[in-house]
Parts: sequence; C-alpha cells; structure tokens
Amino acid sequence: MFGRIALVGIGLIGSSLARVVRREKLADHIAISTRSASTLRRAEELGLGDSYHTDAAEAVEGADLVIVSVPVGASGTVAQAIAGALKPGAIVTDVGSTKRSVIDQMAPHVPHGVHFIPGHPIAGTEYSGPDSGFAALFEDRWCILTPLPDTDAAALDKLKAFWRACGSDLDEMDPDHHDRVLAVVSHLPQLISYNIVGTASDLETVTESEVIKYSASGFRDFTRLAASDPTMWRDVCLHNKEAILEMLARFSEDLASMQRAIRWADGDKLFDLFTRTRHVRKSIIEAGQDVEVPNFGRQSAKRGESQT
Amino acid sequence: MFGRIALVGIGLIGSSLARVVRREKLADHIAISTRSASTLRRAEELGLGDSYHTDAAEAVEGADLVIVSVPVGASGTVAQAIAGALKPGAIVTDVGSTKRSVIDQMAPHVPHGVHFIPGHPIAGTEYSGPDSGFAALFEDRWCILTPLPDTDAAALDKLKAFWRACGSDLDEMDPDHHDRVLAVVSHLPQLISYNIVGTASDLETVTESEVIKYSASGFRDFTRLAASDPTMWRDVCLHNKEAILEMLARFSEDLASMQRAIRWADGDKLFDLFTRTRHVRKSIIEAGQDVEVPNFGRQSAKRGESQT
Repeated sequence: MFGRIALVGIGLIGSSLARVVRREKLADHIAISTRSASTLRRAEELGLGDSYHTDAAEAVEGADLVIVSVPVGASGTVAQAIAGALKPGAIVTDVGSTKRSVIDQMAPHVPHGVHFIPGHPIAGTEYSGPDSGFAALFEDRWCILTPLPDTDAAALDKLKAFWRACGSDLDEMDPDHHDRVLAVVSHLPQLISYNIVGTASDLETVTESEVIKYSASGFRDFTRLAASDPTMWRDVCLHNKEAILEMLARFSEDLASMQRAIRWADGDKLFDLFTRTRHVRKSIIEAGQDVEVPNFGRQSAKRGESQT
Repeated sequence: MFGRIALVGIGLIGSSLARVVRREKLADHIAISTRSASTLRRAEELGLGDSYHTDAAEAVEGADLVIVSVPVGASGTVAQAIAGALKPGAIVTDVGSTKRSVIDQMAPHVPHGVHFIPGHPIAGTEYSGPDSGFAALFEDRWCILTPLPDTDAAALDKLKAFWRACGSDLDEMDPDHHDRVLAVVSHLPQLISYNIVGTASDLETVTESEVIKYSASGFRDFTRLAASDPTMWRDVCLHNKEAILEMLARFSEDLASMQRAIRWADGDKLFDLFTRTRHVRKSIIEAGQDVEVPNFGRQSAKRGESQT
C-alpha cells in the first residue's frame, strides 16, 4: 500500500501500528523513530521495524505515510522537527486524543504539497510502551479522522484505506466536536478513575491494604484506567482544557444532587437515578462496543477459570 | 453439612448459593423463599431447590441454616416474619452490603438459642435475579463475617466451614469498620458509576448515540456497575449513609483540586496525581484480586477473539 511508512513514537499505539503494518504487508519499509535511545533499542530487539532513528527527520525522509504517535503536548515539536524532511505528496497523520490542539500545533509547520490529516483511533489498553502493542488493537474499533477544509480527497481515501486494512471502522468529525465527544467518553472517565483511586489511597480509617484486598467489590474496575500513562494524560488535560472542565462541572453538579438525595434519604430519587442508567449498558452491548458476559468476562485471577 | 438450608431471597446471591450448595452437597434439603410469585416460579423452573415458599416462615421451619439474601432495607421485615418459626440452635446469617444497619434491624427479632451471625460475601456481577447466579461466584472471593460480642464459637466455626465449602476465604471484622471499608471499595465506585453514566446521558452537544458508539475509550467500564440492581443500591445508600457521605465528600474535594490543576494548567501536579495511582493496580493484581491481562481480558465483542 505504501513504500515507506515512518512511525514517530513507538509506544502502545505506534508499536501496534508497526505490528499490523508488518502482518498486513502495508509497507515495504517501516522506519521507527523515538527520542529515547532505550525505547528505540527495545523496538529494535522486538524487530518492529526496518530502520531505527532517534532523529525523527531522518525517519520521515522519503516516507509516503508519516504517523505521529506521541503525547499530544509533543506534537508541535515533532512537526517542527520533521517539516523540512517531508517528501512532497506524503501523508502526515497523528493518533492524538485531542484534535484542535494538535491541528494548531502541527498545521503551521506542514509544508505545501504535504497532506496533513489529523486522526484518532479509539483503541488502547492501560499498558504503554513498545512491548504493550499488538496487531489486533485496532480491529473492530472506530478510527475518527478530522480532515481540514482543504484536505485532498485522494489522500483522505488513501488514509482511510490504510486504517481499514488495520481493521478499523472509519468516521469523520469536526475537530472541536471530536474534542467534546472524547471529553465525555474518554477524558472524564479517565480523570474520575485517577481521582477515586487517589481518594481511596488517602484514608486514615481504612488502610490501603484493605482497599486492595476487597477491591473486587467494584473499586478494581477503576484501577485499570488509573494505571494508564501519566504523561499522555497530563497532556490531554492541558490540551482539551475547556471541554474537560465543562464535563467535570456537570459531573460535580450531578454528584452534589445525588449526595443531597442520600443525605435526605430520598429513596425514590435514588431509585430513579439508578434505574435510568441501566439501558445505556444494554445499548453499548447491542452496538458491539462491549461484551455481554458478567464482569467483562474476567477470568478468575487465581485459578485461571472463568467466573461465569 | 446441614440438614435443611433455607434461602430467603433467590436473586444473584441466593441463587448462586442454591447452586453451590447443590453441587457441593452441603444440605439434604434446600428450601427457597421469595415474596414474588413469579421469581419463585422461575427458581422452581431452574430446579434450584427442593421446596418453594412465598412465606419465609414456612421455608425456615426446621432449617439448620437460614441465609437471608434480600435488599438490606428488607432485613427487618424478614427477621420479624421468620422469628417465630426458627428452630432452636439454628444459624441465621445474611449477605447484605451494610452490616450495622442489618444488625440493628435483625438482632432484636432473633430468639434466644438461635445464632445470628451477620455476613457479607464480597462477590457479585452486574446481573440480578435467579437466572444470573452461578456456583463459582464465591470461589477465591473474600467473605466477611461480623460476629456479635456474644456469638457462639461453635456456630461461627460451622458458618465459616460452610463458606469455605463454597470456595470463599474468610475474614472477621467489626461491623462499623466493615461499613467504612465497603463505603470506599464498593459503594463509592458504584455511585460514581451511576453518576458518570447519568451525566453522559444528559448532554446537549454530544448525543447519547455518540456516547455509546465511542464508549470503548473508557466510558464503557463504568456502565457495567451502573447496570446493577437499583433496589439493592438504593437500600445501601439509605443504610450506610454516614460512611457514604464521608467518602463522597472526600472524593469531591479531591476532584475540585484536580479541576483547579487543570484550569491553571499545573502539569506537574497532574503528572504527580496520575503517577501515584499506578502502583495500586499493580498491588491488586499481585493480591490476586484482578487479572493481569489488558482490558480485563475482554474478548472482542464482534469477533469473539481476544483483544490482546
């Protein structure tokens, strides 16, 4: 599909891309670049690419497709670093969780004749780094592209075909709308998870070892997201600030209202609140976005047997 | 192990108990009781017991072990109803998520010579009703007993042996401490899940179908708990009010502090907050309380293949 693909950043997303590009034979040459010498060495040990570069400009030289997979706060620096080395006609895309900020950071540096098409695969796990990637990460997951008004139609089609070959379903969205949608489906759950795990770690009357021991009663679900990469999430907070603050404000208002219902023992209100959320789970399962089995189909941690 | 076991309430917990008692041959006779005629009929269709009763007093007559598995708000009514029919020397226990309130509701009704030992198996799924139970529910899960100061040692040993035969690990705890521990590991996560799903359903600029479509980016994790039984959770809120309000207050304070760090773009503070929660996940996995695989080992919803 492509001659040379350059992957700038080789964490969970970058290394999953490397693996699926190899498996699906989507490029003749995979050039891998990361600032960290030790991460680059690890990528080489894993045999993820054909060439390895600490200098991103060197990696993108002659590349037909450049995929930037770095924390969103680093997008501008990367764009500046690679701008001069980009081949005319090349496609440059990214995988960042915020889109307006990435466009503001990258677009000014992309030279005329190079096609910059921002993107965001809705896929991931709580793990990070080149060891955590796997070729099936994008299968049956949405990939949202947020093309700019002057985006070349042929280049857009080519990028869509690439993501389809990785197993993704494609969507297009306005960048600002993307940022609002992701603030609620991704950034808010993430921050709430970090927060609840923090709150539980700070108690005086309940020990952390008790919290861990009895975590299967609900708490453990939140610790998964709270184990995610802190650098990535710091950057998301700084680069989607307005939408995130709006969602946090709504969440807090709703929580205050629930708190009041508990204090005044308003059982009917609590029952209503707890009833109206049930159908959302059902819709998510019907949409193929989660599994129908109890407890996410978790296996028993000790015996390796299904809990269902 | 027992002659007759009476199960008062035949939802997720009660019906799981029926199944494991049968599998492990822990009783000669399983008497099942529930107020709802249709639920009782369903239990009979499933062949969960040996006798079926809408009258709880009838079920507990001659029983050596009585297990009350009803929403905690119904504990008092059940205790009153069965008190006169309890056999001298019988053990009465419960499985409620709050312990102080259950003791206050039930203990006054239990006649002299009957052993009342409150309990709480830390096990469950987001499903409810007699169809949702399964014999392995309690395997490798903690069961907390909160014996009263005058509890008979032999009766306590017998109840412990019963739970061990169901696959559980046993713990003892003071009832008030139990209620504080559960407020943080179970009740807070549950309320936060209900709240975030509610908030996401109420947006004007993002549609519910968008929330569902892109839920795999984090939100879907919360919808599992938010699909839990509303009656059970209304009762928990009403019967562990003080501890829950305390945990919600702490959570809200911490969230306000995080919100402020986002508003003022305090990247270092955010990075610290997001780093210190990582080890909790690690400890939970080491304690055998969750699986080590990414995404809880979820299978792909569409293809039935592992995502890892």
